[in-house]
Formats: sequence, C-alpha cells, structure tokens
Amino acid sequence: MKLSARNQLKGKVIEARKGETTAHVRIDLGNGNVVTASITNEAVDDLALKPGDAVVAIVKASNVMVGK
Amino acid sequence: MKLSARNQLKGKVIEARKGETTAHVRIDLGNGNVVTASITNEAVDDLALKPGDAVVAIVKASNVMVGK
Amino acid sequence: MKLSARNQLKGKVIEARKGETTAHVRIDLGNGNVVTASITNEAVDDLALKPGDAVVAIVKASNVMVGK
Amino acid sequence: MKLSARNQLKGKVIEARKGETTAHVRIDLGNGNVVTASITNEAVDDLALKPGDAVVAIVKASNVMVGK
Amino acid sequence: MKLSARNQLKGKVIEARKGETTAHVRIDLGNGNVVTASITNEAVDDLALKPGDAVVAIVKASNVMVGK
Amino acid sequence: MKLSARNQLKGKVIEARKGETTAHVRIDLGNGNVVTASITNEAVDDLALKPGDAVVAIVKASNVMVGK
Repeated sequence: MKLSARNQLKGKVIEARKGETTAHVRIDLGNGNVVTASITNEAVDDLALKPGDAVVAIVKASNVMVGK
Repeated sequence: MKLSARNQLKGKVIEARKGETTAHVRIDLGNGNVVTASITNEAVDDLALKPGDAVVAIVKASNVMVGK
Repeated sequence: MKLSARNQLKGKVIEARKGETTAHVRIDLGNGNVVTASITNEAVDDLALKPGDAVVAIVKASNVMVGK
Repeated sequence: MKLSARNQLKGKVIEARKGETTAHVRIDLGNGNVVTASITNEAVDDLALKPGDAVVAIVKASNVMVGK
Repeated sequence: MKLSARNQLKGKVIEARKGETTAHVRIDLGNGNVVTASITNEAVDDLALKPGDAVVAIVKASNVMVGK
Repeated sequence: MKLSARNQLKGKVIEARKGETTAHVRIDLGNGNVVTASITNEAVDDLALKPGDAVVAIVKASNVMVGK
C-alpha cells in the first residue's frame, strides 16, 4: 500500500513503552533527530514493536509546524 | 519559549512554495529524511522562510503514526 | 508495510479535485458514509487517484471526535 | 450546532474503554468499517457513551490520509 | 449534538477568506486571543460564515501544544 | 524561536494532571474560555507546569473546526 502522507521518515525504534491505553514509541531518525509517536497499546502489539526495529514515522504535512 | 511537543526536528529549508492560502515547506532533516510542512502563506511571510534557513519541524507525538 | 493507525477504512474514490497546492479526495465508505481527505496535489499524482479506485482512508484514533 | 468538519460518519458504539486519562471508543460504521476514537475519560462521562449508542465519528479532512 | 472535544471556544468571526479549495477563518475569542481555522471552502458555504457570526472554535485536546 | 502556528493563545494553567503516560493540562484563556491540552507526562515535567503559570496554547489552523 502506497500512502498519501508526504512524510515517511525512516528510523529505528529506541523504546516502546506502554501506558494503560496509550503507548509512547521513540524512533531514532539519525542525524541527532528522535521522534516520539504516541499510539495505542494495541498498535504496539499488532506491529510487535521492539527496540532496534526498522520503522517509518508517518506524519501528515498538515500536522507539521515550523519554528525558526 | 519552551514547547511541550516531543518532536522538534532540526533541518534546513529546501523550498517554501506558496499556494493561494496554504504553503508547502520542505525541510531536509539529514540522513535522507525530508519533511514537508503545510502551513499558511502568512506563516511563510512571518518567518521569512527561504531555502537554506535552519529551522525546526515541530510535530505532536499524537500526530505521528508508525509503519513497519 | 503495516500501520499503527487503528482506523483504516475501506472505500472507493468518488472524486479527486486539486486546488493550487491542496487537493480534496472524497471516498465512499458504503452505508451512506463518505469521507473527504485533504491531501497534497503531489500525493494525488503519486497515487494516481481517480474515481472508482479502491482505497483506504487512514485516520489516527487521536484525531477522531465523537458526537452524540 | 452545525460543524465545518466534512467527515461526520454515523455509527454505533461497540465499546468505550477508559484508561487513566484517555479512553478508546470503538464505533461500528457498518460495511465492515470500524473507527476507534481516542478521547478523554471526561468526554466519555459527559456523553454517557455506552455500547449500542448511535453516535457520529467526526474527523477533519486534513487529518485523513489515503492509502492505495 | 454534544461533542467529545474538550475545547469549544466561543468567539466571533472576524474574517472568512476562501482560497481555491481551503479557506481561513479568523475568530476573535476575546481577551486578545484570535484563532484561525483552516477549513474547506464548502464548509464556509455550508455554515454561511461571515464577519460578526457567533461561532465555536473546536479543537481536540490532543492537538493542543503548550509553550512556556 | 518564532512559530508558524497561527494560533498562540495566552492563558494561565489551571491544572496539570498526569496519567500513566499522557497528561491533561487545563489553561484559562480568559473571557470564559478554557483549553485542555493533552500532552506527554515528560512535557509536563520538562516545562515544570503548575497552576498559575503563564503559558501559550498552540494549535495549528488545520486542527481547528468551526461550529455555528
């Protein structure tokens, strides 16, 4: 499946930490940039996310702000 | 000002292209990762965004999906 | 690629209409439900979206409100 | 009140499960499509959401991606 | 219809300006706070938005950042 | 740092309540308007958010709906 999202950033999972319903997954994009994704616990299980996994962080262009 | 957003990715503006009301700004994060931000034309003017500018792409953790 | 997004709704493209930078794509989910996605023009070209295409409308759970 | 959101999908609550601060509500849209909304626990109480309730899942067009 | 969104801010439309597909609506919340909503042109027509209208700006809690 | 986000609403923290991974911060904007931000627990610690703090609620224009 091809996605409309312009932003598909390649990285590696550093940590996948579950809460009661929501999990936080930290992804190293290289070059000093780390992305945190807050996703459901179910999604962590579904994708069997664990440290070291090669993943893609996906973000809609309309959800990106710019700071300068 | 310090921000609550977990994701503040450092990069350089590649292109800031305005539409009629909405602009698309492409930011090189290094390591082969490029982020597109869709922001208002007014924001492009306000921040005087132009190619080569050092900027920060800001995304809430709740707006990041993971693909594997 | 498997996605963390809980919401992957199957439907058919009704219309993909481009603006100057942003396009609106209407997707029929059946059962009287139609979803509009606002995506970049580039994404419409990339996915070669046209009426009748079988597609998936993807939405993060954190971007869904409930009305009752 | 009339809403600007293009996407107001009619369905029935399957489950409203609370976490410590955030709840996940699953809504059956018919035609095999199910939407999960992640909303605050307070909202679940406010709307008194329970299985079988007729509800509307509301999503901004800018928060919908397309996969093909 | 009652909404799950925690943030329903009362204000008055200052301006509703259409682009080719996307419109920007500025809403005065009082107390020096102005909110801009970027919505579809169709929504502007549907709600017949015009300066002076009493409206509600609706935002999911998960889409609000905090700066300090 | 200057932000592209059109919506930077000034207010005071009423309450910052942590969950297991996600916190809810309520901000008084004056004029009867209160905004709830759902942010990570880490962000609450990072910004040392506490009642009475002068803060800014930041929202992208594309994440604001209008009700009338």
